[in-house]
Amino acid sequence: MEQLNELQDKSKLIRKWCLISTTEAESGHPTSCLSAADISAVLFDKYFTYDIGNPLNLFNDRFVLSKGHAAPLLYTLFGMAGAYPLEELKTLRKFGSRFEGHPVPEFIYTEAATGSLGQGLSVAAGLAMVAKRENLPYKSYVLLGDGELAEGQIWEAANFASYHKLDNLIAIMDVNRLAQSGETMFGHHIEKYADRFRAFGFETITIDGHNFEEVDKALEKACNNKSDKPVAIIAKTFKGKGISFLENKDGWHGKALKKEELQKALAELGEVDDSLRFNLIKTSQIKLPEKTAVNDSFDLSFEKNKEYATREVFGEAVTQLGKKNTNIYVLDGDVKNSTFTEEFLKVFPDRFVECYIAEQNMVTVAAGLSRLGKIPFVATFAAFLTRAADQIRMARVSEANIKFVGSHVGVSIGEDGPSQMGLEDIALFGTLPGTIIFQPADAVSTVKLVSLMTNHHGFVYMRTLRPKTALLYDVAQEFKIGGSCILRQSGDDVLTIAASGITVFEALKAADELKKEGINVCVMDCYSVNPVDKTTLIKCLKETKKQILITVEDHFTHGGLGDFVIAAVSDMNFRVEKMAVSIISRSGSKEQLMNQAGIDVSAIIIKTKELIK
Amino acid sequence: MEQLNELQDKSKLIRKWCLISTTEAESGHPTSCLSAADISAVLFDKYFTYDIGNPLNLFNDRFVLSKGHAAPLLYTLFGMAGAYPLEELKTLRKFGSRFEGHPVPEFIYTEAATGSLGQGLSVAAGLAMVAKRENLPYKSYVLLGDGELAEGQIWEAANFASYHKLDNLIAIMDVNRLAQSGETMFGHHIEKYADRFRAFGFETITIDGHNFEEVDKALEKACNNKSDKPVAIIAKTFKGKGISFLENKDGWHGKALKKEELQKALAELGEVDDSLRFNLIKTSQIKLPEKTAVNDSFDLSFEKNKEYATREVFGEAVTQLGKKNTNIYVLDGDVKNSTFTEEFLKVFPDRFVECYIAEQNMVTVAAGLSRLGKIPFVATFAAFLTRAADQIRMARVSEANIKFVGSHVGVSIGEDGPSQMGLEDIALFGTLPGTIIFQPADAVSTVKLVSLMTNHHGFVYMRTLRPKTALLYDVAQEFKIGGSCILRQSGDDVLTIAASGITVFEALKAADELKKEGINVCVMDCYSVNPVDKTTLIKCLKETKKQILITVEDHFTHGGLGDFVIAAVSDMNFRVEKMAVSIISRSGSKEQLMNQAGIDVSAIIIKTKELIK
Repeated sequence: MEQLNELQDKSKLIRKWCLISTTEAESGHPTSCLSAADISAVLFDKYFTYDIGNPLNLFNDRFVLSKGHAAPLLYTLFGMAGAYPLEELKTLRKFGSRFEGHPVPEFIYTEAATGSLGQGLSVAAGLAMVAKRENLPYKSYVLLGDGELAEGQIWEAANFASYHKLDNLIAIMDVNRLAQSGETMFGHHIEKYADRFRAFGFETITIDGHNFEEVDKALEKACNNKSDKPVAIIAKTFKGKGISFLENKDGWHGKALKKEELQKALAELGEVDDSLRFNLIKTSQIKLPEKTAVNDSFDLSFEKNKEYATREVFGEAVTQLGKKNTNIYVLDGDVKNSTFTEEFLKVFPDRFVECYIAEQNMVTVAAGLSRLGKIPFVATFAAFLTRAADQIRMARVSEANIKFVGSHVGVSIGEDGPSQMGLEDIALFGTLPGTIIFQPADAVSTVKLVSLMTNHHGFVYMRTLRPKTALLYDVAQEFKIGGSCILRQSGDDVLTIAASGITVFEALKAADELKKEGINVCVMDCYSVNPVDKTTLIKCLKETKKQILITVEDHFTHGGLGDFVIAAVSDMNFRVEKMAVSIISRSGSKEQLMNQAGIDVSAIIIKTKELIK
Repeated sequence: MEQLNELQDKSKLIRKWCLISTTEAESGHPTSCLSAADISAVLFDKYFTYDIGNPLNLFNDRFVLSKGHAAPLLYTLFGMAGAYPLEELKTLRKFGSRFEGHPVPEFIYTEAATGSLGQGLSVAAGLAMVAKRENLPYKSYVLLGDGELAEGQIWEAANFASYHKLDNLIAIMDVNRLAQSGETMFGHHIEKYADRFRAFGFETITIDGHNFEEVDKALEKACNNKSDKPVAIIAKTFKGKGISFLENKDGWHGKALKKEELQKALAELGEVDDSLRFNLIKTSQIKLPEKTAVNDSFDLSFEKNKEYATREVFGEAVTQLGKKNTNIYVLDGDVKNSTFTEEFLKVFPDRFVECYIAEQNMVTVAAGLSRLGKIPFVATFAAFLTRAADQIRMARVSEANIKFVGSHVGVSIGEDGPSQMGLEDIALFGTLPGTIIFQPADAVSTVKLVSLMTNHHGFVYMRTLRPKTALLYDVAQEFKIGGSCILRQSGDDVLTIAASGITVFEALKAADELKKEGINVCVMDCYSVNPVDKTTLIKCLKETKKQILITVEDHFTHGGLGDFVIAAVSDMNFRVEKMAVSIISRSGSKEQLMNQAGIDVSAIIIKTKELIK
């Protein structure tokens, strides 16, 4: 290797800035950066192809830092690639700096927010998949720590990458032996990781991660990979490498050096040429993600007296939108015949991604797709979206533009029992700032809301129902984010019932029964759960005699529609009563279970009469 | 094999009842039962050692049905073992039956609720670990489907089982090729699974799952395993095996046979001896889990003017309780030096379970421990408990007695940034019916609440803080589930501020500042977030001039303390204002981030003045 000295100097400069920046910050993970300094120096010096002026250029290689706590390494690498002056790294972890403790989108070179471990391989797989599907030439690199290889998501992603033959994916494992609180499960036995990745269908290369020639050969081999398999480079490294009192020493995870320790460390590093920079290989072309216009018009029509399952209508609607918007991708976790995304698969196999029963990977792959301008729809049972709660959380931090659709919500699914019931999904998505939540009750609203969710940039979650429901709306009806529809109203309503999804029908039945007894109630369909239609809620409350509002929903009591409604009117003196599921349900018919949970027509009638006494 | 004919007949009887029960229910997964009928016939006929009168007998073998949708198989097996008349299986999936669509604890022979896939191996590992730690002779069997092997949790559990040398664990894979919506990733290539399990440290045996001799030899070998490795029996099977129009046919997942199809199927099965039963091997001894009394007295004392981190005090408290209660286990995900469970490890290495960075497996292993009478404490960063949201959900359905402790909650953690902040944890646990949620603000309350959570049977979650906080309470102070403490109160308070955890100190500072301006406010420490202290909240509201309540918390706006408080008083005409985190936070100091989020002393002062105008 001709430029060995220069490479050594560059990795010294990387080390220097990882140490300086964390000491300035008085926190951070310098030793986790040092173990990967040599590997990344070779990658950026010789292989990484990137248009620094256009991070979204679709001809750029991709670099995902899965071990997000090594953020100073990422920041130093792009600084040495000319993105900003290295001096700015002294703002690390300070309020207002783009260099946060773990990478976030404000640092525009990060492919995704990381910091919750074991997610980067899925991000990289999502990025690699776009290249495969669209014949783009780039490589997708991901740097992982050894501690995070214990996370199951890694192995979901590994199966996914090999199954989909992502031979443009290069995963580099920085096996530095020491995790946060002690040695990892396998210490420096890199063959244990190699065995696992090989069994999961990867080409594997084991190296000494501090030997530049071995690193170079491994990356060269990986870049020339013709095996149709993804590549895993498993590098034996030392945490804190290069500084004698840090190297391979326990007790240094997540600790910045004190000022005097830093001086000692820099003295050990010796003279460093501060002018050294990476001259990244430029991409041959510029191609940015295209935005595709969404046309709202649908060719769907519905028969007035027929019932439709909103989950099924969703499948048809997203397929129709897919014709007009070629950025739409659909991801499935082996339930495509339940969520009805199989419709999309039939028409657009190239934009359908089968993730099998591995929801965590599915969500993070979607974050990767979103990074490159795609609009991924992630659909599974609402209950199983909880499997990916952390991935959803992190995708939100990544500002990903993902559309989630959870089917089989509530006790109304019936016989399958509690394990299959989505009863905490509104809470899951509702906590995440700015997440839109829709719950259509009928076919027409489903179609309209699928269109709205596609057009809204950002997180949107839609709940769909297992049972079929009657039509409530004419196709001319308008729907909007933050909207609602009043379905029953008279001049002398005693109170208002705010329902959503399946409970809309229970509320309507209750209203009709009560009317026979001379009791009029106002019924609202809160199809927009978040933001909820505060204006209409208050208007209805004011117009009803008792100024009482009942919310009724097929969701657990805490964190659902009821809490959004109560919060919306809590600054005024109204009385609100939540009706929701407060028990672990069981097997039974839809009617029995809604009755047992106290959210059916009879419960609403009893509650209404009790409140107006 | 001597009794081949009888075995064949027994597996016929299994098939018969799996078919009959699902047809009666008009739903269910008969074909998923049929593929495993032969394997389980051999297991129950010859190997399974069990005291049917005492499901909790610690000398019993354990049988976990990870593929929970094959519940009729489980029910038939225990029926044929004499637990109940087979006729009762006709109540399958009906309201009130113990035979639900997926196994739940009402079926007392189930080791855990299953039905969300990929969790059973972790349950079985937890059960196997108890035997290892306590020198009990039983085997822990788990039956898995091939579809669920795509779930990452499987590989977390596989690492866990081999790392902890659980050679008493026997995992049987029913590789029937067909998942819900099509063929699995690897179809009938059972060697792909064998490669993976071997790489993950298992002894592997591949067999034809319909060849009784092969099944028998495999089970015999597994039972005599002397390798110190767990065993994986990977069986090639056919979905719907035994019925020509179901066998290996796509499109039959989760479908019950119609009455006429059932007749055809039963005719194909031919004559079945309905009197056949499994004569399970009896256990040699009876030993039931022991309850250990918890003594509340602590030897901990705190210095009045010193500050303590509640996370650190938790570590000390659980260690002290561990001395008195030998059922307490502590599980860690490589953060024991952050959650301070390392204290427990030092004193009780035999009851400390290192799970490494694999939170899903950690939670489900805890469910396994709970089944056998242990009181597992699961501790990690609150943010990373979201990684196991589905496992937490299912453990709740299992009625597991788990204590969760989430550290590093809120933006108050500072520089590490949003990926490490627990801001949705109250919503996560709060939705699950009957879950107690505590958030201590100081050392004394932490100690008292750790004791309360241990004594309460069921789900309890406690939030702990990263920063140190001052003492608020004297050791004589009493704490209770559903309690609170009033920290500031005067005869003429204008409004009430309900805080919890770190915001208690902001509220106190605000109260002291406001007092200087002649404005008195009432300050409550809602250490019991759920149930929240409704009585005291209403009392305070009534006693304050404006009858206004402010909630202030370091949690996202939706689903936190504020929503519990609002819901508690929503049936009365009070005004409640939530102050909480409504943005994705960033890196910065605790003070900067609490200020940015609008939950610090200055925000409380401004809000108070605004409300009393």
